[in-house]
Amino acid sequence: MKKVVTFGEIMGRLSPPGYGRIVQAQSLNLTFGGGEANVAGALAHLGIPAAHVTKFPDHEMGHAATSYFRKVGVDMQYVQYGGNRLGLYFTEFGAAMRPSKVVYDRADSSFAHLDPKEFNWKEILKDAQWFHWTGISPAISESAAQACREAIKVANDLGITVSADVNYRKNLWQYGKSVQEVMPDLIAGCDIIVCGKGDAEDILNIVPDGSTKSGWESVSKQIMARFPRIKKIINTKRGQISASQNTLSATSFNGKQVLKSETVEISQIVDRIGGGDAFMAGYIYGNLILKDEAQSLSFAVAASALKHTIEGDINLANLDEIETVMKGDLTGRLKR
Amino acid sequence: MKKVVTFGEIMGRLSPPGYGRIVQAQSLNLTFGGGEANVAGALAHLGIPAAHVTKFPDHEMGHAATSYFRKVGVDMQYVQYGGNRLGLYFTEFGAAMRPSKVVYDRADSSFAHLDPKEFNWKEILKDAQWFHWTGISPAISESAAQACREAIKVANDLGITVSADVNYRKNLWQYGKSVQEVMPDLIAGCDIIVCGKGDAEDILNIVPDGSTKSGWESVSKQIMARFPRIKKIINTKRGQISASQNTLSATSFNGKQVLKSETVEISQIVDRIGGGDAFMAGYIYGNLILKDEAQSLSFAVAASALKHTIEGDINLANLDEIETVMKGDLTGRLKR
Amino acid sequence: MKKVVTFGEIMGRLSPPGYGRIVQAQSLNLTFGGGEANVAGALAHLGIPAAHVTKFPDHEMGHAATSYFRKVGVDMQYVQYGGNRLGLYFTEFGAAMRPSKVVYDRADSSFAHLDPKEFNWKEILKDAQWFHWTGISPAISESAAQACREAIKVANDLGITVSADVNYRKNLWQYGKSVQEVMPDLIAGCDIIVCGKGDAEDILNIVPDGSTKSGWESVSKQIMARFPRIKKIINTKRGQISASQNTLSATSFNGKQVLKSETVEISQIVDRIGGGDAFMAGYIYGNLILKDEAQSLSFAVAASALKHTIEGDINLANLDEIETVMKGDLTGRLKR
Amino acid sequence: MKKVVTFGEIMGRLSPPGYGRIVQAQSLNLTFGGGEANVAGALAHLGIPAAHVTKFPDHEMGHAATSYFRKVGVDMQYVQYGGNRLGLYFTEFGAAMRPSKVVYDRADSSFAHLDPKEFNWKEILKDAQWFHWTGISPAISESAAQACREAIKVANDLGITVSADVNYRKNLWQYGKSVQEVMPDLIAGCDIIVCGKGDAEDILNIVPDGSTKSGWESVSKQIMARFPRIKKIINTKRGQISASQNTLSATSFNGKQVLKSETVEISQIVDRIGGGDAFMAGYIYGNLILKDEAQSLSFAVAASALKHTIEGDINLANLDEIETVMKGDLTGRLKR
Amino acid sequence: MKKVVTFGEIMGRLSPPGYGRIVQAQSLNLTFGGGEANVAGALAHLGIPAAHVTKFPDHEMGHAATSYFRKVGVDMQYVQYGGNRLGLYFTEFGAAMRPSKVVYDRADSSFAHLDPKEFNWKEILKDAQWFHWTGISPAISESAAQACREAIKVANDLGITVSADVNYRKNLWQYGKSVQEVMPDLIAGCDIIVCGKGDAEDILNIVPDGSTKSGWESVSKQIMARFPRIKKIINTKRGQISASQNTLSATSFNGKQVLKSETVEISQIVDRIGGGDAFMAGYIYGNLILKDEAQSLSFAVAASALKHTIEGDINLANLDEIETVMKGDLTGRLKR
Amino acid sequence: MKKVVTFGEIMGRLSPPGYGRIVQAQSLNLTFGGGEANVAGALAHLGIPAAHVTKFPDHEMGHAATSYFRKVGVDMQYVQYGGNRLGLYFTEFGAAMRPSKVVYDRADSSFAHLDPKEFNWKEILKDAQWFHWTGISPAISESAAQACREAIKVANDLGITVSADVNYRKNLWQYGKSVQEVMPDLIAGCDIIVCGKGDAEDILNIVPDGSTKSGWESVSKQIMARFPRIKKIINTKRGQISASQNTLSATSFNGKQVLKSETVEISQIVDRIGGGDAFMAGYIYGNLILKDEAQSLSFAVAASALKHTIEGDINLANLDEIETVMKGDLTGRLKR
Repeated sequence: MKKVVTFGEIMGRLSPPGYGRIVQAQSLNLTFGGGEANVAGALAHLGIPAAHVTKFPDHEMGHAATSYFRKVGVDMQYVQYGGNRLGLYFTEFGAAMRPSKVVYDRADSSFAHLDPKEFNWKEILKDAQWFHWTGISPAISESAAQACREAIKVANDLGITVSADVNYRKNLWQYGKSVQEVMPDLIAGCDIIVCGKGDAEDILNIVPDGSTKSGWESVSKQIMARFPRIKKIINTKRGQISASQNTLSATSFNGKQVLKSETVEISQIVDRIGGGDAFMAGYIYGNLILKDEAQSLSFAVAASALKHTIEGDINLANLDEIETVMKGDLTGRLKR
Repeated sequence: MKKVVTFGEIMGRLSPPGYGRIVQAQSLNLTFGGGEANVAGALAHLGIPAAHVTKFPDHEMGHAATSYFRKVGVDMQYVQYGGNRLGLYFTEFGAAMRPSKVVYDRADSSFAHLDPKEFNWKEILKDAQWFHWTGISPAISESAAQACREAIKVANDLGITVSADVNYRKNLWQYGKSVQEVMPDLIAGCDIIVCGKGDAEDILNIVPDGSTKSGWESVSKQIMARFPRIKKIINTKRGQISASQNTLSATSFNGKQVLKSETVEISQIVDRIGGGDAFMAGYIYGNLILKDEAQSLSFAVAASALKHTIEGDINLANLDEIETVMKGDLTGRLKR
Repeated sequence: MKKVVTFGEIMGRLSPPGYGRIVQAQSLNLTFGGGEANVAGALAHLGIPAAHVTKFPDHEMGHAATSYFRKVGVDMQYVQYGGNRLGLYFTEFGAAMRPSKVVYDRADSSFAHLDPKEFNWKEILKDAQWFHWTGISPAISESAAQACREAIKVANDLGITVSADVNYRKNLWQYGKSVQEVMPDLIAGCDIIVCGKGDAEDILNIVPDGSTKSGWESVSKQIMARFPRIKKIINTKRGQISASQNTLSATSFNGKQVLKSETVEISQIVDRIGGGDAFMAGYIYGNLILKDEAQSLSFAVAASALKHTIEGDINLANLDEIETVMKGDLTGRLKR
Repeated sequence: MKKVVTFGEIMGRLSPPGYGRIVQAQSLNLTFGGGEANVAGALAHLGIPAAHVTKFPDHEMGHAATSYFRKVGVDMQYVQYGGNRLGLYFTEFGAAMRPSKVVYDRADSSFAHLDPKEFNWKEILKDAQWFHWTGISPAISESAAQACREAIKVANDLGITVSADVNYRKNLWQYGKSVQEVMPDLIAGCDIIVCGKGDAEDILNIVPDGSTKSGWESVSKQIMARFPRIKKIINTKRGQISASQNTLSATSFNGKQVLKSETVEISQIVDRIGGGDAFMAGYIYGNLILKDEAQSLSFAVAASALKHTIEGDINLANLDEIETVMKGDLTGRLKR
Repeated sequence: MKKVVTFGEIMGRLSPPGYGRIVQAQSLNLTFGGGEANVAGALAHLGIPAAHVTKFPDHEMGHAATSYFRKVGVDMQYVQYGGNRLGLYFTEFGAAMRPSKVVYDRADSSFAHLDPKEFNWKEILKDAQWFHWTGISPAISESAAQACREAIKVANDLGITVSADVNYRKNLWQYGKSVQEVMPDLIAGCDIIVCGKGDAEDILNIVPDGSTKSGWESVSKQIMARFPRIKKIINTKRGQISASQNTLSATSFNGKQVLKSETVEISQIVDRIGGGDAFMAGYIYGNLILKDEAQSLSFAVAASALKHTIEGDINLANLDEIETVMKGDLTGRLKR
Repeated sequence: MKKVVTFGEIMGRLSPPGYGRIVQAQSLNLTFGGGEANVAGALAHLGIPAAHVTKFPDHEMGHAATSYFRKVGVDMQYVQYGGNRLGLYFTEFGAAMRPSKVVYDRADSSFAHLDPKEFNWKEILKDAQWFHWTGISPAISESAAQACREAIKVANDLGITVSADVNYRKNLWQYGKSVQEVMPDLIAGCDIIVCGKGDAEDILNIVPDGSTKSGWESVSKQIMARFPRIKKIINTKRGQISASQNTLSATSFNGKQVLKSETVEISQIVDRIGGGDAFMAGYIYGNLILKDEAQSLSFAVAASALKHTIEGDINLANLDEIETVMKGDLTGRLKR
């Protein structure tokens, strides 16, 4: 099977054990993750060949990040080494009404200072069938945006499916260009995007025009009108009952109709970070293997729900577990 | 008080901390357990003298298993040492809709290769008032079945109460004989058995005959008709809400009438392994101390429910905790 | 801002990790806490200057206790060193229907044997605006009661607000005097007390006289009649659903009317010890900063609820987290 | 084989992991030990039946102590339960020039308040061949001394060998009697004692009289003259190179001649606590099994040296390991 | 660069933390290793492309083993999945005179039951320049020996260098053939072997003939005479000072002369398992990169020495660290 | 006693447990340290009032750093909050010939971007008797150098003793000015400096002029000639036997004569980071309390040696431990 390629920053994640706060911690658990690499990780865990492209510092922290993703089975041969530091983020896990908290320390990472010329996309993408990026990369630096732009172009040239979680994070856009200057060009090269109403307004200035009952459908229609390459737009919805309990569902629009998944309740959250990336990986898996939009959505929601019970950013839910949840069985019956 | 004797395999249990998966683990928690020894352990914790009979390899893992049960107060003087290995099982703990998972690595254990002559049952059972075994032992090997058979015979000769959880596990029967060839003889020596409808069909070919509204009652009647020594048949029922939440109840049939326990909800599961063994221990405790069937059932369900909040296979719930739950108080009010 | 001063015993707390029992533990987590010092700790965490006064043995365990509270920002300069031992308590954490359990080992502590002359209250309280004590200190020993008495007197002389959680613990009163002999004098020096109906009867022999519908209101009126310095009486109420789930609310009486807080549900308890002290700290914070009784009560309940999600005795919930819960938002939405 | 019986206090031991100090610790490792019980533990580990007699509080800490020794195989059926607390001690482990440190918190333990009548020594010692005590018990309280006195008397009556490590610890003697009042009577009932020159002077007022070159030999002769039941006096010598490196040797005097062991160097100390008790256990093992004084001494020194490489108070060195060291092989060659 | 391919069993390794014994352990550290795979791991860590060929059960433990080696960078694409179990071994770490101890539980592993036809050696070896195996594989089972035989044949056909650590472990040869029947054929296909005097006698019946002063040189000459493909024979020597301190050196014979390395002292051993495999990897690295026999030997000894300071079976010493030791600098000066 | 004030950056330190490498780590121990703050920490631990001045980000990592030093007793009231990040460094601990390794990630810290105006030195130093800084601060940024300059000036104005460890780290000087431009002015304000021959050349261009046998004495003379305020120059010497074993000594020059300390061997290193800062703290302690140069030097070397046995950057050796080593006793005899 041809591989899926993802591109984006990977950060070290440092979090106190259990429900401890950082001011209480004598040790921090170390994992690694990134919105795009988590997709590659989850796919590799499900047996889909996946390669991730990024840049790491050439020291212990960069090597540890490579090792971490290699362990899951992600092909890390295209990683470039150089620069000074690995981006980090610190997380505390909440419970009940106490929120989980994330403190970023990612400025000036090796990824932010990458040189777009370091990546030979024709070589990287030659055996690929899918390229996935997110709105975080173009937010980080001019050069990261540029590398993303080039990757999308090559992917388009090679006829590879391009997907993106457009994911606007206001705080990240610090290098002098605005999201509205940079993103439209990149979105134009996509076949599939994850994009909610808020993102559409922030990134594309598109708001519901009243043509459909659902604001999101209206927005999606306008996006598709503006970006003819886009074939499907996805939206995910999280119901926040407490830090320990959430619900998940998703919607897909193919230009004609809106498809809705079931809503899955997660009754005990272990680690919600990466839940969206697990959705994306599940959706890509669905597109590649299940080839049915309703099933893909359902698989993606099940995968995302299960991710909330897995420690670390990467979804290590097994195929049979996802399939069980996808069929509506949330009983978690012991497997011998 | 005269002792309770149990017989069966004890395995090492290796499980990642928290909700980790084995592929993520850098260390595995080590405990020990077995469906029969767990009964002895729970009884010893409640102050009932209990001895367990088994075979271990004469190396560190066997010694560690002995130590583990000795710690709880089980008399391990009748354990035989020899053979090559301790059976193991690997467990991952699930949460919400993700199931817990068990991978067995128990083939060719010292127990499977025991020599029935190693156990002098007359000596072992001389101060006993109760002998308990399960359907797992005769499934493991010809010689284990034979040792079980001899123990039951001696117990019958000595007028000791014999109980069994008949527990059919299809995967285990690998040594050339079928469950239907082996088990009936052993069941014939029992005074009390735990046996559900499924087990009755698989093991004894007995199915509901429509004579009673409850299929299980009908099956139980037929069992009692076929095995006149049996005085009580017990059935337990687990309601599976999620991997984190279950309900428990039990039913007892004395040949005449069916007695039902309350249903207890376990709102937060810590470790459900050994829940059935905790029930059995509670039921034996009830028979020996409470001497009232309804109370015994209620005590057993309470004990089993509490086991789900205890780490490890052995129920370490205290007497006062079980009694509180038995009275219907599930509030878990702080004790100072 | 002038400081808050608290006085009382601090004990070492030793508890098995997770839901383990002490008989299973190979290590015990070590924290430190005390009903009054926890108030100082929570206030210091919120930026209110707070000093705690106590006595520790002059060895590693006493030094560790000092360090622990210094870490949170409590001023420990008035701590006296001497005597032989630090009081300890052992805790097991329950789940679902299994209660948490506390075993005290606090007799003959350095605090119990303090010499009232060791504390120069004029010096200690000279920059203070609030003094807080609880009914535990006068229960411990004659000399602890005497130190408490002197502190209250100096506080009264200096016009400092005095608050107390009257908290009657029957087991503690062992030194020959009864609670009813000792406490009234001390309560007489208070401006604000936390006191429920049961405490009122046990400590003051005051029972509802039928003058109001609420027994507690009636009792509070009588208390205020007897102790004219008291301006507010507070009552807290815990709803015990299970060891993992509680509800909290509080009531305040100012001599004229009863004010009730909302009831907050805690859907997943991490560590409930110190919940009452977190309430007290929240209430003092409210009095000092919010200056509105309804808001103070609401802040206190929110703070106490959040404490149940924090490991250790001291409430380390942040101001923004408390304010969110105070506004009724229990969703625990991730903060980046 | 007839059993060895030991009598004395068991304390909980709490120590930071690794080389941490208590003021740094967030958790303390929990083990249990006592100078006499450690002897029983080491013997049980070597397969010698051993029972320990003591008193524990009837709560979690007492039960945990029982479990701990039961795990090693010590018969704990004679333990009495009652009183308030388990004695504790806190330990920090040193390295290089930094000493290990012990802080005791043992006053007012259940053991100190035992009632001598609780122990039926005729029953306890009826199947015993050896009784061992130390100078710590009579130091703790009048009643502990009395229980010790009665045990020795019964042992003498039954013709059981009595051994003691006379071990004078000045700080312990607090209950109003002096070591010189209490100990001579108890020593009079011994067959074998461990006693150095310093102990002889402190306890018995015996100093070298110049009759032999070795002061210890002279002192031992005088002891034997005064206590005719004593057949052998043992002395152990620790060479303190650093907290990480020690040497050990021992000397035995049988009234006629002095026998010296080899000196064993311990090049890397893991945990030196209980080294003396491991010696004693080794020496008793030697007396029971090897029946040659030189070999017993050599076995005891080897056992003690190996204890320094074992975590916890109890020597868990295996028989083959002790025999290898006893033969002078200190290379620690990997065993497969 | 063309890759190095290794073939052999990988086992799970379970060991108590620190210097604990298994009977004391509540958790076991989990790593994975095998005499041949460790070579691949160490080479991959140094940047040499390396693939390992083996068979794992298709469950969590097999997947974890794959992940573990993938993490280090070993190409695991040729691993076959099937069979029932992963071989395991349990290790305790010694100190000073207490030996480390290994208990094997490897019988009936998926590797032992491999089907030689599962491995397409022409495909596997097509981009390889080196094939390495050890005497352990042919000892495990007929089919493992057969797979090894086929691999060597294909390697010989392709002109790939073949190396072996002949490593005779008596206990392993259980399947009915003797080492002397099986090994000579396999050795005949080697270019380089590690073989000491003892192995030569046990495996090949070759003993020193007195023709040279060094018995090993004489033996090596005879081996070369008998197996003309062999160009170099290597011998390693471990000096065992204690479990904490060893010395290492090595000798190489090229048919004409013996080359000796320096002796390196390891003053503090962290984990000696895999020391020999680290030597082998170092020696292969030397042959591929340094291309000087004296330097290769020196690099190999330095690598092996450093392995003793690394946790786990695989040598994760960095290139610069090995080069520093190779130059004789053992001071371990801090690197910033 | 008047306080000691230190100024400089504090970083978070993240290191794998034991001897693990970062690529192996699933958790990193979290401590905090800085070359100047470590001095304040060690002094506070010895009971000398000490305040540290620095800047932290106003988020969890900054708060945790404050808490960490507050715990040891350092007055952190002058810390400024703002900026984006806390500098970090990653450490691996070596053993035997494997070096410990440090990877810095400290660029763009809140400290580097401090505003010199944030620190009101007249206020900060008003109750101080000693100000200590190091050559690291002026290397970090222009503004850090400026803050240092101002602090020294105020200290000089107030007649406070100023000490510095001049400590040239080439890699740090990145902001456009050279060490030789910046440092001389700052050194001119010092009373006492730690400065070796290498530093003298790198920073001041001063090399031995042959006037004395010792090059360092000659260099020190020239420094004193150039900087008349300097009264004492100190040099420390580390003998590097291995990563596990070092020796330490120090030399002091007062303008007239050179005083040498004994050389202390550290036979087992636990954590050598902060050893130089422990020396400095010991030397300041000596100056303030012992008031004898030879004793101060000896105390400082003993303190530094003991630091190598303490986990974390801050010396937590107790006064009695330092005094024992100072007297030449390195035996580490157990303290009860």
